Amino acid sequence: MTTSLPTSARSASPLGLHRVLDPPGVLPQAAWRLDPSPAIAPDEVRVRVDRLNLDAASYRQLRETYAGDADKIRAAVLEIIATRGKMQNPVTGSGGMLTGTVEEVGPGSPLGLAPGQRIATLVSLTLTPLLITDALRRWDGQSEQIPCEGHAILFARSIAAVLPDDLPVPLSLAVMDVCGAPALTSRVVKEGNIAVIIGAAGKSGSLSAAAARRAGASTIIGVVPAEAEAALLREAGAGLVDEIVIADARDPIGLAEKIEKAGGPADVTVVCVDAAGCEGGAILSTKQGGTVIFFSMATSFSAAALGAEGLAADVTMLVGNGYVPGHAEFALDLLRTMPAVRALFERRVES
Amino acid sequence: MTTSLPTSARSASPLGLHRVLDPPGVLPQAAWRLDPSPAIAPDEVRVRVDRLNLDAASYRQLRETYAGDADKIRAAVLEIIATRGKMQNPVTGSGGMLTGTVEEVGPGSPLGLAPGQRIATLVSLTLTPLLITDALRRWDGQSEQIPCEGHAILFARSIAAVLPDDLPVPLSLAVMDVCGAPALTSRVVKEGNIAVIIGAAGKSGSLSAAAARRAGASTIIGVVPAEAEAALLREAGAGLVDEIVIADARDPIGLAEKIEKAGGPADVTVVCVDAAGCEGGAILSTKQGGTVIFFSMATSFSAAALGAEGLAADVTMLVGNGYVPGHAEFALDLLRTMPAVRALFERRVES
Repeated sequence: MTTSLPTSARSASPLGLHRVLDPPGVLPQAAWRLDPSPAIAPDEVRVRVDRLNLDAASYRQLRETYAGDADKIRAAVLEIIATRGKMQNPVTGSGGMLTGTVEEVGPGSPLGLAPGQRIATLVSLTLTPLLITDALRRWDGQSEQIPCEGHAILFARSIAAVLPDDLPVPLSLAVMDVCGAPALTSRVVKEGNIAVIIGAAGKSGSLSAAAARRAGASTIIGVVPAEAEAALLREAGAGLVDEIVIADARDPIGLAEKIEKAGGPADVTVVCVDAAGCEGGAILSTKQGGTVIFFSMATSFSAAALGAEGLAADVTMLVGNGYVPGHAEFALDLLRTMPAVRALFERRVES
Repeated sequence: MTTSLPTSARSASPLGLHRVLDPPGVLPQAAWRLDPSPAIAPDEVRVRVDRLNLDAASYRQLRETYAGDADKIRAAVLEIIATRGKMQNPVTGSGGMLTGTVEEVGPGSPLGLAPGQRIATLVSLTLTPLLITDALRRWDGQSEQIPCEGHAILFARSIAAVLPDDLPVPLSLAVMDVCGAPALTSRVVKEGNIAVIIGAAGKSGSLSAAAARRAGASTIIGVVPAEAEAALLREAGAGLVDEIVIADARDPIGLAEKIEKAGGPADVTVVCVDAAGCEGGAILSTKQGGTVIFFSMATSFSAAALGAEGLAADVTMLVGNGYVPGHAEFALDLLRTMPAVRALFERRVES
């Protein structure tokens, strides 16, 4: 790779390896510095950026480090992007996502985008080449939402979704943020299955319940931690879940007993709560031969593996993959067609 | 639960909840203290124990704490077992397994055992009620293998395997220790698949390669970290793998390029090395629509989930469950019938 050539003349990699400047040979996410030059390779797309949405952990770290001083926070984010060619907080390692308008599409891009479309990226900012041109001057530093001007580059294997016209942007973004969960749930749940959704009143949980319903589940048991969440589920309206169980998902025996009384154990259990220690309860609430899908980032790999072994549980355990082709469209369709999902989302999103 | 009743008169739980003394209501593995009384419930089995095999991490902690002093190590292990009713190192949280002879089988036990059979437990000592009667006096404290006398209790959902007559005990134990990996590999690999085994010269790796072969894989690519391991694989004999790739599995791009040259990417990739940071390489070495099975306890859940998303990789990712019905018999059969597997195991086990 010769960095003196314009980007467009280099051999492009679908993963964006040709944009990695330092250290050479690593994936863009692992790179210290990317090349955000505007000239695109034949399979790339350039996006005119209008908003960055920083990852919550990243924004919290910046705000705490600079004691909420807006100028210092703004300067720090600008410095990161200028130095690294991407928005990846060096302390937290995390990024976020962006919205913008498609500006130029290479003839070899497989993403199916067209100039003028308003999109959101569904891959992390940690691997997206980015260049800011307005010094972030419209950002007050008081929220993780950054109005801005500049451009970003999408690779052949980047993921982006067109923002629909019929939904408020914050609502669409909230759906897209968790859209892997319903897509994978839909693949796994079969007609007539009993499904348990742990965290059913949350964003990924309510969409997963809707996906299980759509896939033909005969009984959907929604687990929530407290009466307030149960009330949310009930108010959202009929049809999302058949049974509501209030339980501490970290207590395996308590959870499994309540699930059994509510019509379980499950053919498929979907874990959508970000609490640590839910592995045993999920496993114990699932039939022999059933499947547990872990969507919580608080999942411990070893707790799941050793837990199933210790319980002699013949269950298939899936790592929730945030990417399933068509996931954003599928999740938006669930929101549009199932009023209970939309009601839950609207309560959780300030739109 | 009334602890003054004899165990046999209590209502037995298949998970052993009736043996939990403190704190009440938790699973035996999470309990501080179990009841190791010899009287069995109708679905339990009592085993005359002849050997404990401490988990490596537990033994290392004990040896280091007591600076290798045999009397102190022995006293510490005895104290743990007497206090807790099980061998669970309070510092490491880990246990190990045991061998012994079946002494009494309750009429309702589903384990299929008969008095007089020599068995090994395949569930952890951390959840197995245990009582020692010989003060461990035959143990020199110099290894994690503890010859002893006493008894242990198996629950309805415990797992035990009969030690075969035709194989040396250390060889059988080494196979049983990793027997979940080939069993799950065998379920996932389909006729004609390309399989990549990362860590193919190791115990779980060689058995997984054998299972992939048995399941009809058309090409098996074995990944090893260095020439010495490649030589082991070659010397083991024909048929275990079709291609040998020497690569650092922590380098995603390097690994994926070598896998592609060797005939990949894979339909099924099996990760059997205990190194951290292999998630990206495994994902990138697998076809869209393929499956990655993670058997390494060094697997990071979030690295797998976010890695697949960042690579827009539509791969199914499985948490390697150590329990699959019939796993021990299946793995022992692979060892018996595939000379290459046996050769690799015999080099790794002092039998």
